[in-house]
Amino acid sequence: MTNFGEQNLVDGNKDYAAAFTQGDLALPPSQKYAILTCMDARIDPAAAFGIPLGAAHVIRNAGASTRDAFRSLIISQQLLGTTEVLVVKHTGCGMLTFDDETAKSLVAKTRGKEAAAEVEHIDFLTFPDLEKAVLEDVEWLKEKAVEKDVLVSGWIYEVETGKARKIVG
Amino acid sequence: MTNFGEQNLVDGNKDYAAAFTQGDLALPPSQKYAILTCMDARIDPAAAFGIPLGAAHVIRNAGASTRDAFRSLIISQQLLGTTEVLVVKHTGCGMLTFDDETAKSLVAKTRGKEAAAEVEHIDFLTFPDLEKAVLEDVEWLKEKAVEKDVLVSGWIYEVETGKARKIVG
Repeated sequence: MTNFGEQNLVDGNKDYAAAFTQGDLALPPSQKYAILTCMDARIDPAAAFGIPLGAAHVIRNAGASTRDAFRSLIISQQLLGTTEVLVVKHTGCGMLTFDDETAKSLVAKTRGKEAAAEVEHIDFLTFPDLEKAVLEDVEWLKEKAVEKDVLVSGWIYEVETGKARKIVG
Repeated sequence: MTNFGEQNLVDGNKDYAAAFTQGDLALPPSQKYAILTCMDARIDPAAAFGIPLGAAHVIRNAGASTRDAFRSLIISQQLLGTTEVLVVKHTGCGMLTFDDETAKSLVAKTRGKEAAAEVEHIDFLTFPDLEKAVLEDVEWLKEKAVEKDVLVSGWIYEVETGKARKIVG
């Protein structure tokens, strides 16, 4: 089995480091914002969302869940001074294709009892409706007292066209 | 206040979508791997780690925590077929600079009681030693039964030089 990940990193990083000139960027994001998007392989946030290096935190998880990202968002805002969050979900998301029961049965069947116990209490945070999920996730975040002074918006990125459109905020 | 996030996304996405030609990529990562790295603004995973569009899941949170990413990692592996995970932490990480007590006091002081209650039970998953944190996070993941057939490695990316080096795996 080829380990593409390690191979790509070693080869790609050699070229990247050789041409690297931005070693003096500061820790806090220079443009004071964060983007929360999905881990989906078809999304390249820096390119698709126009993020300059050093400008913004980029948080990614399965489905771009605000609940799952809450720890990171608090750190981004309270410790590192960001004041704007863009929540970007996308068409064709894997989280539209299964539910907790499917995931848990699959793990039990293919990995056995011990693995099943490890995932038993996990909420996989799947959703059946994309646009509704954007609205709900943004709403969930905006209701938090700790988010009072943060500007939150919700977006959908189309993996078929490369276009992003605003849903709310 | 300028909302750089929205402005960058709208402007940058216009150009990206106009030149976009990869609308037919499949949902499962074509090279069957996932990269877990930090949300830090100075990291551009696609460029620095040589990830082709559609090839790999990219999960990002504060500190590249495997515990925090567990839900996403299970989905990546059990539902979408990835078999390799690279955990990439980095020099100059914000998670080296504070602890739970600092974060919680700060929230209480600047956002008030209601906000303090919201973060009271959060483990911010900070760490005092970078290399040790890579080793511990990789170990934590490898001990899970659900990870039995997954190849896990640990790396450190240097934000000062653009270089990544392997620590374990």
